[in-house]
Amino acid sequence: MEEQKVYEIERSLRMIAQMIKQKGREILNQFPITPPQFIALQWLSEKGDMTIGDLSGRMYLAFSTTTDLIDRMEKNDLVERVRDQNDRRVVRIHLLDKGKKIIEEVIIQRQEYLKDILYIFSDEDVDFLEKNLHHLYEEMKRKRGK
Amino acid sequence: MEEQKVYEIERSLRMIAQMIKQKGREILNQFPITPPQFIALQWLSEKGDMTIGDLSGRMYLAFSTTTDLIDRMEKNDLVERVRDQNDRRVVRIHLLDKGKKIIEEVIIQRQEYLKDILYIFSDEDVDFLEKNLHHLYEEMKRKRGK
Repeated sequence: MEEQKVYEIERSLRMIAQMIKQKGREILNQFPITPPQFIALQWLSEKGDMTIGDLSGRMYLAFSTTTDLIDRMEKNDLVERVRDQNDRRVVRIHLLDKGKKIIEEVIIQRQEYLKDILYIFSDEDVDFLEKNLHHLYEEMKRKRGK
Repeated sequence: MEEQKVYEIERSLRMIAQMIKQKGREILNQFPITPPQFIALQWLSEKGDMTIGDLSGRMYLAFSTTTDLIDRMEKNDLVERVRDQNDRRVVRIHLLDKGKKIIEEVIIQRQEYLKDILYIFSDEDVDFLEKNLHHLYEEMKRKRGK
């Protein structure tokens, strides 16, 4: 395997991810949320209910900054604070339907963006990309599991 | 073009980007910097010298948080503050060699990681991935330019 090709693939993947992310940020202008709020929604969508402590750790933000962020999101009905049934001292942040809906919309718009770009690719090439990117991701998961 | 395939490609690209990003964060443990410091290094590497105001806007951090971040990075010789030659009131943050070196190292390690994963792909498949991901990125740039 030519090393140069690996470098090119790494660079393309990095640049593509950045373009899609930038596109995602443009899309966010249509919603009443800021990018850090969207990142918080993504974490909650991925990991389920989280404490403010967990969330501030994941987002590399100070506890007080994360508290302010969640306060604004709660006012906006994107999330709610929920007390743990077994330990009432523990409060977790729970994603509400309005928050879920925004994540879904952003993903749909990313798909639309990609569809626009892939339009010029042949069916065979789209087919190959689909299969090989899936394979690449599966292999990454497999290696991580080891 | 089957829509389902576009969705799968979007998902794979999103997941692969996340895996490489996570891997990048593990790699950061080997360096004396935090993830937000690394993100600041990336912005400075990409855009050149920036004011704290620009940087805090790009990173969606408060001005005071960004100032603290840059103070720590300056103590660590990753960046330095430079006064504008024409307007001495303007101060910009300049990336130093130690900072550049860290970015390069992280990219090298991402490449090594990807090489490890691509090992099981045939030469033809690596070749195809390289060409088509490059094509995809070029098309994204072309569409953005319009």
